[in-house]
Amino acid sequence: MSRGFAVVGRAIPKRDAYAKVTGAAGYAADLRFPGMLHAAILRSHYAHARITAIDTSRAEAMDGVVAVLHHGNTSARPFTTSEWDAPAALGSLPRDQVLFSAVARHVGQAVAAVAAVDENLAAAAAEAIAVSFEPLPVVIDADAAMQPGAPSVNPDHEGNVAAHVRFSAGDVDSALREADQVIERRFRTSRQKQTPMEPFACVAQYDGHTLTLWSPNQTPHQTRVKLADIFGMAVGNVRIITPTLGGGFGARSGLIGEPWAAALAIATRRPVRLVYSRYEDFVATEGRHPATVTLRVGFKNDGTPTAIHGTALLNTGPYASQGPNVTAFLGMSLLRPYRCGDRRYDGYTVFTNAPPASAFRGFGAPQAMFALEQVIDEIAERVGKDPLEFRLEHLAGKGDEDYALMRPIDSDALHRCLREGATAIGWAAKRGKGGGSGPWRRGVGMAVSIYVSGTACLGDTLTEAAVANVRLNADGTVTLLTGATDCGTGCGTSLAQIAAEELGVPMESVHVVMGDTDVTPLDLGAHATRTLFVGGLAVRAAARDARDQALRVAADLLEVSAADLDAADGAIRVRGVPGTSVTYGQVATAAFKTVAEISGRGVAPQHQATPYGAQFAEVEVNVRTGQVRVLRLVAAHDVGRAINPLIVEGQIEGGAVQGIGYALTEDMPVDADGQPLAASFMDYRVLTASDVPLIESLVIEAPDPAGPFGAKGVGEVGIIPTAAAIANAIYDAVGVRLTELPMTPARVLEALRRTDPTGAASSSRTRESPDAR
Amino acid sequence: MSRGFAVVGRAIPKRDAYAKVTGAAGYAADLRFPGMLHAAILRSHYAHARITAIDTSRAEAMDGVVAVLHHGNTSARPFTTSEWDAPAALGSLPRDQVLFSAVARHVGQAVAAVAAVDENLAAAAAEAIAVSFEPLPVVIDADAAMQPGAPSVNPDHEGNVAAHVRFSAGDVDSALREADQVIERRFRTSRQKQTPMEPFACVAQYDGHTLTLWSPNQTPHQTRVKLADIFGMAVGNVRIITPTLGGGFGARSGLIGEPWAAALAIATRRPVRLVYSRYEDFVATEGRHPATVTLRVGFKNDGTPTAIHGTALLNTGPYASQGPNVTAFLGMSLLRPYRCGDRRYDGYTVFTNAPPASAFRGFGAPQAMFALEQVIDEIAERVGKDPLEFRLEHLAGKGDEDYALMRPIDSDALHRCLREGATAIGWAAKRGKGGGSGPWRRGVGMAVSIYVSGTACLGDTLTEAAVANVRLNADGTVTLLTGATDCGTGCGTSLAQIAAEELGVPMESVHVVMGDTDVTPLDLGAHATRTLFVGGLAVRAAARDARDQALRVAADLLEVSAADLDAADGAIRVRGVPGTSVTYGQVATAAFKTVAEISGRGVAPQHQATPYGAQFAEVEVNVRTGQVRVLRLVAAHDVGRAINPLIVEGQIEGGAVQGIGYALTEDMPVDADGQPLAASFMDYRVLTASDVPLIESLVIEAPDPAGPFGAKGVGEVGIIPTAAAIANAIYDAVGVRLTELPMTPARVLEALRRTDPTGAASSSRTRESPDAR
Repeated sequence: MSRGFAVVGRAIPKRDAYAKVTGAAGYAADLRFPGMLHAAILRSHYAHARITAIDTSRAEAMDGVVAVLHHGNTSARPFTTSEWDAPAALGSLPRDQVLFSAVARHVGQAVAAVAAVDENLAAAAAEAIAVSFEPLPVVIDADAAMQPGAPSVNPDHEGNVAAHVRFSAGDVDSALREADQVIERRFRTSRQKQTPMEPFACVAQYDGHTLTLWSPNQTPHQTRVKLADIFGMAVGNVRIITPTLGGGFGARSGLIGEPWAAALAIATRRPVRLVYSRYEDFVATEGRHPATVTLRVGFKNDGTPTAIHGTALLNTGPYASQGPNVTAFLGMSLLRPYRCGDRRYDGYTVFTNAPPASAFRGFGAPQAMFALEQVIDEIAERVGKDPLEFRLEHLAGKGDEDYALMRPIDSDALHRCLREGATAIGWAAKRGKGGGSGPWRRGVGMAVSIYVSGTACLGDTLTEAAVANVRLNADGTVTLLTGATDCGTGCGTSLAQIAAEELGVPMESVHVVMGDTDVTPLDLGAHATRTLFVGGLAVRAAARDARDQALRVAADLLEVSAADLDAADGAIRVRGVPGTSVTYGQVATAAFKTVAEISGRGVAPQHQATPYGAQFAEVEVNVRTGQVRVLRLVAAHDVGRAINPLIVEGQIEGGAVQGIGYALTEDMPVDADGQPLAASFMDYRVLTASDVPLIESLVIEAPDPAGPFGAKGVGEVGIIPTAAAIANAIYDAVGVRLTELPMTPARVLEALRRTDPTGAASSSRTRESPDAR
Repeated sequence: MSRGFAVVGRAIPKRDAYAKVTGAAGYAADLRFPGMLHAAILRSHYAHARITAIDTSRAEAMDGVVAVLHHGNTSARPFTTSEWDAPAALGSLPRDQVLFSAVARHVGQAVAAVAAVDENLAAAAAEAIAVSFEPLPVVIDADAAMQPGAPSVNPDHEGNVAAHVRFSAGDVDSALREADQVIERRFRTSRQKQTPMEPFACVAQYDGHTLTLWSPNQTPHQTRVKLADIFGMAVGNVRIITPTLGGGFGARSGLIGEPWAAALAIATRRPVRLVYSRYEDFVATEGRHPATVTLRVGFKNDGTPTAIHGTALLNTGPYASQGPNVTAFLGMSLLRPYRCGDRRYDGYTVFTNAPPASAFRGFGAPQAMFALEQVIDEIAERVGKDPLEFRLEHLAGKGDEDYALMRPIDSDALHRCLREGATAIGWAAKRGKGGGSGPWRRGVGMAVSIYVSGTACLGDTLTEAAVANVRLNADGTVTLLTGATDCGTGCGTSLAQIAAEELGVPMESVHVVMGDTDVTPLDLGAHATRTLFVGGLAVRAAARDARDQALRVAADLLEVSAADLDAADGAIRVRGVPGTSVTYGQVATAAFKTVAEISGRGVAPQHQATPYGAQFAEVEVNVRTGQVRVLRLVAAHDVGRAINPLIVEGQIEGGAVQGIGYALTEDMPVDADGQPLAASFMDYRVLTASDVPLIESLVIEAPDPAGPFGAKGVGEVGIIPTAAAIANAIYDAVGVRLTELPMTPARVLEALRRTDPTGAASSSRTRESPDAR
């Protein structure tokens, strides 16, 4: 660090940590309002069926049932759960959903909704609704959905393609023809669910004028625009308040259950509480896109890549949602990391009757990296290079053109992550050296992550918006109003550190207000690893504005020029003249008499940062059972500047744990009828603390010139390379490539058997000893 | 009006009217939080006693009792319930209260407080606290308290005088000696209570970091500063949210029950709900100061006043609170209205063991006018002038120096109120003409009101602070954030009209956010008839700022100069070029791409307006029973500009009804031991709709040059002259002067008997017939 910071860089516990661990924190499901009703949603058990009749008479006759809504009595204004048009970088998303449709297109789609005076009654009333379904043909796989004659999921989109995203540079076909060697591989990824610990819950209230939702929503400012549109209301009359969020990971971006709670509140004019069961949180929220990724890479005999063509099919379920954007981002993640002359990507967002998919931490990048980083390892092996050396040689680095940002890369952080991570894991000593005992074989593998922080660059118009206000209170303490959302990342604490540092006040002086669209300025929400970076830029600008105002007031009080003043520790001092100072409290009092209140405003400039990272996994594979144990995971991530190292490490570790789950256990498969086969924590295996190794976070600080105090975001990056690093480590251990996620024992065994059809692998196959190589 | 308005001047119903009349509006007492505790306060039944022992063991042993606080276990940081020091115009108010004192100084003072899991349990536990009191000598009347040897109420203030407020111009003693005639009269006013329909209620919550209060508080921004001081917290960490207020009238300004609820919340770390009983709302909130007002007025034989000397004793109870300010304002109200060479005022704020008094609609002016306007009538009678003519001649008017503001009066509104009111009541035909039938005698009377709107002029530094923000939403609707408080006046609606007018958007487009200190900018709260005037100035400035930003964006879109644009009906048009326009929604979208969000900020300039008024009462007095019936009340009030005539009339009518109550029925007397004798609606007579005549509001519009669209405030003025007008009408009917409030049948009869000790009045005294005069 070139300068000392007072607050930035301190490992301060998240401000809500104590409340959360003691159970004091209030979540949406904890809210109670006088006269509040409880909602239950009747959901389709068919993956595709037409509703031919619906009889709500029994439900409506139940004492205490106040409203029953369904497609026959509710307006059908189409919407998308995902982003608001204005900031859409890649064009507007299709508005292909309605509150209640006459056609159910996936298991779990809302068919009717009930509001009643208690929860059990609401559930009983929902069950008492008699619905006649006419089953329609079902298509579950994206490949199948694209075949001629496949059932049509969405009549507005012929061939079940929601979007075909294509971009290219150069002539890939020729380059592939002319390449010394070509590798083509296909990968299939799983239907990972975000599984926040808090199932979705919200309370909606409508007073005839204002619709208020208490909802754990990651993008409240966007959500209010969408709700206003659905219900034909003024945006100003829709208010989203976010209580404590019990996890986001993308599942709480866009609309979740808010439209149904709101519809019931509007119908009843009473507060309506909607709490999803864990089953609903699995089937009625949007997970990660299962993707089939095909990579063709051409390269010279020395390994230099010359052509890369990626193709991806993303199974988005029956509604587009963020699918087109995820499809695009997956492709960018394939084509961006390595220097390569000619590149092409064809991505298809495919409609099916599988459960819906949309944004999830990493937004297409984990799928891409699982494919790309295994193929890179394979090329390195073909040309006899160590995977680390190969990457250091061929990854786009400082001075190269960034394929996504179309500007030169100005950071060597990726190479630093590679080198420091390799040292930490002991790469040189372990790679290709085998080890293990009994049926267990050891190996190490690595993969990189190149992501975004902010969305500014993705379009040619401004697509970022983050605003903050800083108000100086009477006693010199500060109220920070930010439109950002803390979805559990602790950004409320980090943003307060940025404000405290910029103002020169103690951390304890900064009170943060966030999560209420009525009162906080505009912000696009918690996604794209943007909160600390873009939100932090707004906060820093607002704090600077307030500080400059305070310095002017102090200059009058001290009868000096504002240029001679410094602010630190809650006081403003004349530089170089000890003993001359005024406190921020004195400034606030003086300001009261001249300008009423010091209030700064900051708007984030349009920047996007690139957080780089590399992860290194050491695994043991049991050649008899196919079980994979992750022994160590070194996660080296460039965060620009760690505003709060504790929070940064928490984000990296959390991402990596979710990445290990993605690699090894997490999946919600569906059967041929579209029935989810793992929609509970009994069947869907989320890793617990005892399942994962100690994750070694290496926080690499390569300050971003545009970031707040040099910081970049870190929220999503931890998950991106993990599965790929583990897959590469499995290969190092047992010599087989896993091309399908999750890498379950069954799949590992199957891959071992494919390599050694005699089945001898489990007992006799061993790698050469280190000495023999 | 010189220009047409689109929204200003429209009689739009208050936005919360429907919710209030249907019971949908949520008040503080309606709030419920998980884990919430209920508070009960044990209050002193002694007016003056030392606590010698307190035994909480029985209460603490009760199952479900979570905390018991009293003077032995609670910090004793002194505070004042009233204003925060920074904006204090007349010097800081004494900090003479503590949460729990070892000495009770009035009946109803808090002795201990309990938090328990239900309301009844809390009450039972409070009763189970055993307190030993050592009674101390009690003094109830202000006169008695000022006598040598009187019991000392407050050991820090010798002689029981909290403040002696004195101001003078000229040499009053000489002027009185040299006057042709002198009248000296003494008046006594009552202990009126504000009796909001909602007894005080609040919920406090403390999470270890932030103290949040949901409280119907008129001055939340000041209250948070005071609470921060009491509990040694950062101001930024105290948040006051005002739910719907069920009436204010001054009783909800300053601290009410918040400190006790907060102390329990801090002690228990659980939400604590404190709801006052009606008894507590009578004895533990601060009412109107009973005052003894002595006026000596010297005048020439033609009636011209030459000297006025007012003396007032205000009984403030045991704590100063706003007493010194009310004392000052009473004096200003006595000396200000009439042209007069020499003036002097001596006001005393006197400590007693009577119930506490502080701010109440009118803030000393009703007491002053009750005295002054009767004396003026008496002078007019002495010199043979009609009271209307006398006032038109001697009231300070346009071009005269305003005694309070020390600048020339620039309005003839007072004289317009007099003339138009007199015409409406039929003054010329009725005054002095008697009438009535049987024992009922008719008469008409009048009185004037000269008040303030805002507090800017009262000190030599800036004492006003009002800030507003206006944010443009994605669809062109607007969110207005104002620090102002709507204590039931409807100012939320009126302020929206100001914003809509200034922006040129429909009223429906403006969503108002108010009543939350964390999120709304600074404002000093609902008092001093300042909200519409000062708050409106801030709102208009903020709207203008936002509109100017929008015009600049529109100018770019339309490729014209911003100076050529007008905004109206939600659109921005090129002046004189039909068909060229953009909507505010289009501007918001365009602005998103350049500045993220259009957001205007406005700070009210330092202005104070003078709302003038005159009321005319027609009464019938029953000479046998002493009963007084108000037959008609004409209330002519200058409001500058009626932003919303419906709301203006509502305020005038509400004030006048409370004024009739002040005149005739409302009083909370206490006995010699300090026991309130009317602390319920059985004993304390608030007038109902069937008790009052149709009140004829004459809305006089004399636009104030500094006001928002010319408006002035109207919240308090309706109550000020009413009792005086009725007293003068009683004199006109039956020839007796009532010098004590309320003018109950007993007092009227007593006055009639004093005039005609034979008691014949009730049957034989009649005025001369009109013809005989």
